[in-house]
Amino acid sequence: MDLNCDLGEGFGAWRMGDDTALLGIVTSASVACGFHAGDPGTMRRACETAAAHGVAVGAHVGYRDLAGFGRRPMRVPAGELADEITYQIAALAGFARLAGTRVRYVKPHGALYNTVAVDAEQAEALAHAVHRYDPRLPVVGLAGSDGLRRAAERGLPVVAEAFADRAYAPDGTLAPRSQPGAVLHEAADIVERALTMVREGRVAAVDGTTVDLRADTVCVHGDTPGAVSIAAALRAGLLAGGIELRAFTDVES
Amino acid sequence: MDLNCDLGEGFGAWRMGDDTALLGIVTSASVACGFHAGDPGTMRRACETAAAHGVAVGAHVGYRDLAGFGRRPMRVPAGELADEITYQIAALAGFARLAGTRVRYVKPHGALYNTVAVDAEQAEALAHAVHRYDPRLPVVGLAGSDGLRRAAERGLPVVAEAFADRAYAPDGTLAPRSQPGAVLHEAADIVERALTMVREGRVAAVDGTTVDLRADTVCVHGDTPGAVSIAAALRAGLLAGGIELRAFTDVES
Amino acid sequence: MDLNCDLGEGFGAWRMGDDTALLGIVTSASVACGFHAGDPGTMRRACETAAAHGVAVGAHVGYRDLAGFGRRPMRVPAGELADEITYQIAALAGFARLAGTRVRYVKPHGALYNTVAVDAEQAEALAHAVHRYDPRLPVVGLAGSDGLRRAAERGLPVVAEAFADRAYAPDGTLAPRSQPGAVLHEAADIVERALTMVREGRVAAVDGTTVDLRADTVCVHGDTPGAVSIAAALRAGLLAGGIELRAFTDVES
Amino acid sequence: MDLNCDLGEGFGAWRMGDDTALLGIVTSASVACGFHAGDPGTMRRACETAAAHGVAVGAHVGYRDLAGFGRRPMRVPAGELADEITYQIAALAGFARLAGTRVRYVKPHGALYNTVAVDAEQAEALAHAVHRYDPRLPVVGLAGSDGLRRAAERGLPVVAEAFADRAYAPDGTLAPRSQPGAVLHEAADIVERALTMVREGRVAAVDGTTVDLRADTVCVHGDTPGAVSIAAALRAGLLAGGIELRAFTDVES
Repeated sequence: MDLNCDLGEGFGAWRMGDDTALLGIVTSASVACGFHAGDPGTMRRACETAAAHGVAVGAHVGYRDLAGFGRRPMRVPAGELADEITYQIAALAGFARLAGTRVRYVKPHGALYNTVAVDAEQAEALAHAVHRYDPRLPVVGLAGSDGLRRAAERGLPVVAEAFADRAYAPDGTLAPRSQPGAVLHEAADIVERALTMVREGRVAAVDGTTVDLRADTVCVHGDTPGAVSIAAALRAGLLAGGIELRAFTDVES
Repeated sequence: MDLNCDLGEGFGAWRMGDDTALLGIVTSASVACGFHAGDPGTMRRACETAAAHGVAVGAHVGYRDLAGFGRRPMRVPAGELADEITYQIAALAGFARLAGTRVRYVKPHGALYNTVAVDAEQAEALAHAVHRYDPRLPVVGLAGSDGLRRAAERGLPVVAEAFADRAYAPDGTLAPRSQPGAVLHEAADIVERALTMVREGRVAAVDGTTVDLRADTVCVHGDTPGAVSIAAALRAGLLAGGIELRAFTDVES
Repeated sequence: MDLNCDLGEGFGAWRMGDDTALLGIVTSASVACGFHAGDPGTMRRACETAAAHGVAVGAHVGYRDLAGFGRRPMRVPAGELADEITYQIAALAGFARLAGTRVRYVKPHGALYNTVAVDAEQAEALAHAVHRYDPRLPVVGLAGSDGLRRAAERGLPVVAEAFADRAYAPDGTLAPRSQPGAVLHEAADIVERALTMVREGRVAAVDGTTVDLRADTVCVHGDTPGAVSIAAALRAGLLAGGIELRAFTDVES
Repeated sequence: MDLNCDLGEGFGAWRMGDDTALLGIVTSASVACGFHAGDPGTMRRACETAAAHGVAVGAHVGYRDLAGFGRRPMRVPAGELADEITYQIAALAGFARLAGTRVRYVKPHGALYNTVAVDAEQAEALAHAVHRYDPRLPVVGLAGSDGLRRAAERGLPVVAEAFADRAYAPDGTLAPRSQPGAVLHEAADIVERALTMVREGRVAAVDGTTVDLRADTVCVHGDTPGAVSIAAALRAGLLAGGIELRAFTDVES
């Protein structure tokens, strides 16, 4: 199983998350590329540290919206969006190469992540941008989403992502954050949920029913208080449960 | 005596400093206006909290350089710089007015602060921008600097700023940060230095000589670890030493 | 009748439209405020030239999206959007005051214009931002739109805008640009359409039916080839038709 | 001889220069990479058109300053500057690869161009950034400048650039634009000057003396009125003078 985390989310003088600590825990690092977060120096250091830890580097591509941290949905025309995604992947690829590695996958960030899960035009734009850049480059997306299906139909490897710290609706979508209990905060609960996801391929929904959920990677959040200790507990819990942790990208290489 | 602090230095999802805590300590708040830091929501909240605490609001104007936090010197043509400064003051003035107050002074930030202290063209551009906006608006600058003298010559009220946590060279300039001992970290030392500045109008330089230093306001840093406790100690120390704390802008009103 | 035009849409080294020529033609100038276009120097010059021609200055507020020229719809949370709008109005107000005038109205730009016409949350955010800034400040919006109604319900003066160079659907909305004939290019057609709007308060829709359309201002586009000559023809045609041209803001002052 | 031109200098809705026309004239295209100009779509199209015309693509890297078009000198710390340059080269490299070509050289833009010609720290930062990216990648710089010498000392191929439309001081530097006659506007003068540079390796300075000037490429400006016709005249004049035109990068490949 793979553990991935959003990284490199500082910008200039502003810091967010503890990249160094998290890179000792996860197996894949989704590195911001400068559009919603991530200045060039932060990108270089994230690639270097990831490479030093044997952590796979992914391009965490987002809307061009530093002021909104890429969390504000934008209706960007498909061609423009594809070009903005190419720009971000390519910029990160430069730093990855300097660090002796390469961009191993692409994951959309924030509002773009949510939009491509359901919006055909933007999902196609993402798939197009990745495919023309490198058709072997996997796309990470919400397990079970339309966007992931579209990327697969275009011939891209797809990686289904699950969230061990989020409540699920009976239809397999994430319960909205506004709903009580939508975010889990106890490390023990999160570990147990992750183990069930990984071992049984399913998760208990908020109404008690069980949802099938294929998970190729489990997302670890890095920007909340206690993020590092929860991530460490998740890693330890999965290892203690006999789950092998390695980057999903290592499977095919 | 006035205590001023840089505030509102977050941007979007990124935070910097503890604005609320600091606004309970200082008498003047230099609020970032969106060019080097400060999104509109942060500006509004800073003005509201300052107004609620009776803290004077100042426009902390900087270079247009979010990625560099306004710390990278830029050679901006005088006319352009004046317009960029007007824009920042006016934008903050809107939020100050909503909060029931107004912009009471202008203080340059970071590299602009250092540049106007010595560079005639940029000092004139700043003075011109402030003067045409409101000739009664005070400009804060480095005590003893050319820039402050230029603003005064143009007829603007000027406010000499001293730094209680910085070492001074024998000529009254700040010892460069790269020099050992350039920044004081012990609250007791900082309080003592501030008391000497305020009571005697002088400061001990790094070579042991004494430098005359008129201080209308003492700067409190907000973005370093321990900033709030040092600021609180400084406030308590000055009050215990019998120094009355109030915004310099209250003197003339 | 009022003729308004979008102005000040350059940014730094980039120019767009012929501000000086247009300011000799229109009665109201909607000046970009730096978020989708408009650098501080351009804003200052637009205000100065407008003031010199007796043209009313309005704040043309947009999404924070220079790369997309504010034409990409953004789902900005209401509070954030209101603060971003306040920031823009206030910044322009600074330059208007320097030019001896003031911001006389607010008009949303591009995707924000279209969104507030139909989206309750963003319409409320705009109305809230304008109302708290100055409840006497008129809001310009699409004639007959929900957004304009919401602004009026909040107590703001509203100004209904019509487009003499656009085709209308039978329900009074603009025919989408993708539709053939959606944009009129012949000056004579545009003048005739404007005269009918102004004299009879109605417009012929694409299906031949007649739509009631109250027009307080007619929009003149400035950024297309031939824009200036069409605008001049429109002005001349309205004057020749006995229509008095003056800023709508002059009615109440 | 090589003719190079700055290209892709639009941004979003803003256009600058006639890329398509110029790409039919020059042999090398210095494409803006998004920091001082150049959005992703413009970059992609510039690479595609250049590739279609057999024109070599270079990364035109600049300061992060869209509002100033990269023309305002910035004192960026060396490490930061190197990372900002890497980011730009890598981003363009992505589009070049999609277009079936690659980045063949690096040329600094505007204020960065002038600064690296004389400033050791920034010249080293540029050379470091290019060298670590690809030590075979040529750097274009002002003929005879310190910056070019530093890049050569680091082992990078260097390309000396001359300006056929600019007056030279007796020491081989460009006469400042503020000086009368600093910029040549007559095509015939520009062609004659270029021929002398290419054939004799020298240029007449403003005082009538002759300056030795090795020119590996001649710069054609694209953003001024008449730029395309002057460029076309220069191309025709050089060809008529028996000069072979080809990208300097073709020499070694």
